[in-house]
Amino acid sequence: MKSYDQRDPVSGAMRRALGLAAEIGSPGPATYPNPRVGCVLLGADGSTIAEGFHRGPGTPHAEVDALSKAGARAEGATAVVTLEPCNHTGRTGPCSQALIDAGVARVVYAQPDPNPVAAGGAERLKDAGIDVEQGLFAAESRELNRVWSRAAELQRPFVTWKFAATLDGRSAAADGTSRWVSSRAARIDTHRLRALSDTMLVGTGTVLADDPALTVRDADDRPAGVQPLRVVMGERDLPGDRRVFDEQAPSLQLRTRDPHQALAALWQRERRHVFLEGGPTLAAAFLEAGLVDEIVVYVAPFLLGAGRSAVADLGITSIADAFRPQVRSIDVIAPTTEGDQPNVRLVLEPAAPAQNREDR
Amino acid sequence: MKSYDQRDPVSGAMRRALGLAAEIGSPGPATYPNPRVGCVLLGADGSTIAEGFHRGPGTPHAEVDALSKAGARAEGATAVVTLEPCNHTGRTGPCSQALIDAGVARVVYAQPDPNPVAAGGAERLKDAGIDVEQGLFAAESRELNRVWSRAAELQRPFVTWKFAATLDGRSAAADGTSRWVSSRAARIDTHRLRALSDTMLVGTGTVLADDPALTVRDADDRPAGVQPLRVVMGERDLPGDRRVFDEQAPSLQLRTRDPHQALAALWQRERRHVFLEGGPTLAAAFLEAGLVDEIVVYVAPFLLGAGRSAVADLGITSIADAFRPQVRSIDVIAPTTEGDQPNVRLVLEPAAPAQNREDR
Repeated sequence: MKSYDQRDPVSGAMRRALGLAAEIGSPGPATYPNPRVGCVLLGADGSTIAEGFHRGPGTPHAEVDALSKAGARAEGATAVVTLEPCNHTGRTGPCSQALIDAGVARVVYAQPDPNPVAAGGAERLKDAGIDVEQGLFAAESRELNRVWSRAAELQRPFVTWKFAATLDGRSAAADGTSRWVSSRAARIDTHRLRALSDTMLVGTGTVLADDPALTVRDADDRPAGVQPLRVVMGERDLPGDRRVFDEQAPSLQLRTRDPHQALAALWQRERRHVFLEGGPTLAAAFLEAGLVDEIVVYVAPFLLGAGRSAVADLGITSIADAFRPQVRSIDVIAPTTEGDQPNVRLVLEPAAPAQNREDR
Repeated sequence: MKSYDQRDPVSGAMRRALGLAAEIGSPGPATYPNPRVGCVLLGADGSTIAEGFHRGPGTPHAEVDALSKAGARAEGATAVVTLEPCNHTGRTGPCSQALIDAGVARVVYAQPDPNPVAAGGAERLKDAGIDVEQGLFAAESRELNRVWSRAAELQRPFVTWKFAATLDGRSAAADGTSRWVSSRAARIDTHRLRALSDTMLVGTGTVLADDPALTVRDADDRPAGVQPLRVVMGERDLPGDRRVFDEQAPSLQLRTRDPHQALAALWQRERRHVFLEGGPTLAAAFLEAGLVDEIVVYVAPFLLGAGRSAVADLGITSIADAFRPQVRSIDVIAPTTEGDQPNVRLVLEPAAPAQNREDR
């Protein structure tokens, strides 16, 4: 891996390219199935010829965006790009070919393309006689597209399971009432996280019991402009008047109870990030299949003493076999509403999702 | 209430007296049933004549400690003391009389004596013609003896209920295994808190099932020099070979299942701070009786999916009736051992212990 040198124009350009990639804000329904990518074209003297970044599906890739601004000046240039130039023809042609056609002399990229379908861009460039380097700011670029990268590696959508529980692990009281377990600030935070995904997923049981809208709304309860796809999985027929089927966002029922099948179907529909909010039984099925990549838990500091458990039976009988994910972060969500209490948000990562469960 | 003036020698002396009171370190078995108190004697010119503080039961009170150093110089002095001078004869005579006898001209104290048995010291001083003022740094002095003050007001020991739970509210797996739910750092933190109390309390069920030692030990598993009293409550007979009855600390069985009776018996034995670690059923009995003053929860970021609930049924059926204490603090206990995860410690306070439960 290359080390960063602040006097090196390529290092500076890569830092700038990362900043350009982040111009799109955050990942989510507006960017998926594509990653965030930035590109800077440098002249032989180290000066910037042109910059570009990717704005989402159907728009030019970062390299093509920069090349279109550079025109003939791209001849002999160094292309500094956050992700390995793609090698496949999707909505647009392969970027590796565009760089070759433009007469670029050298390509420096940060993160190798994790997607086995699209990879090969570096090889194509080298075959065309272009000088190719990789590794500078690779970790930063991967972090920029953390969820997208993992999904590309796994060739299935990344799955975030979110649940809220009282300090004694309850998601509803004995009579079924559950509004609200988490504070208003925690619920707003949940909508912020929903907006980073492109797919909301629940089971038919949750739709029948709770009738959630599954839309992304802001603190004033206004719907976001771009909504994740709302997916209900399960074999039961559902009444058409459920809120999940309203006109606020697209919806889909997957008639399967198998998490593998559901994720395969969603991957086919170009879904990259599933936000799983649907009931303990569905979550347990994903956990036991090793198909949870991230867990977000909101802990509300009160007690119910009885009622519905937030987590279903996972087949664990002894504490030695407990499901022990890694802690990614722990934060206190301060209350924003009079009378509310602070909640605790934990973000956890199963150490190695697939293997982890097979070991047991 | 007086405001603080840094040019006023009395303000400076009170701050010094608070510092002296804190010399004893922390409250716990070494100081209870007494509070931490500091005293500074000032001359007419504002200079310090003598200082004193209380070192625990059987030793002189702060005022007497200072007076004994001042001797005849106490005549006409101002006594600055963190707590209202006592008016009762316990192991030592009343401090109010000692101040009168020494010829002190003026007494300034921070916190009024919350103990209805001992109160009246200010009155006795005034009756003797001494100029008496109250209120300066009252909140700071109360915080110094937070638990002791509350116990004195309630005329029963302050009760801290501690429990540890997984993120899904379990204290043991389905097969009963429970070592360990909390991290090693959290267990060390628990011993630190135990050492602040003068009484460990569990039920007979916990002794029979888990056979805990209930001693205070340090990070290297060495027992602390002064141990809290170990109390088992319940009517069942217990085998004499249980660890709670070993020679490492004093022990006591209270043959009652009634929390009110148990606390009354412990108050009679001059216990001020009960650390309740004994099982969900016992904790529920204290909670439902409104006899929990503080809850310390360690949340371990893993899942069991089944097993023993950390909190027993509290008779709550609807979320509107949930037991919602106030959050005093939330802290992440960082892991100190390889492979351990951070735990979250929440300290909660039932809003108004007695009334709170009667409202339901």
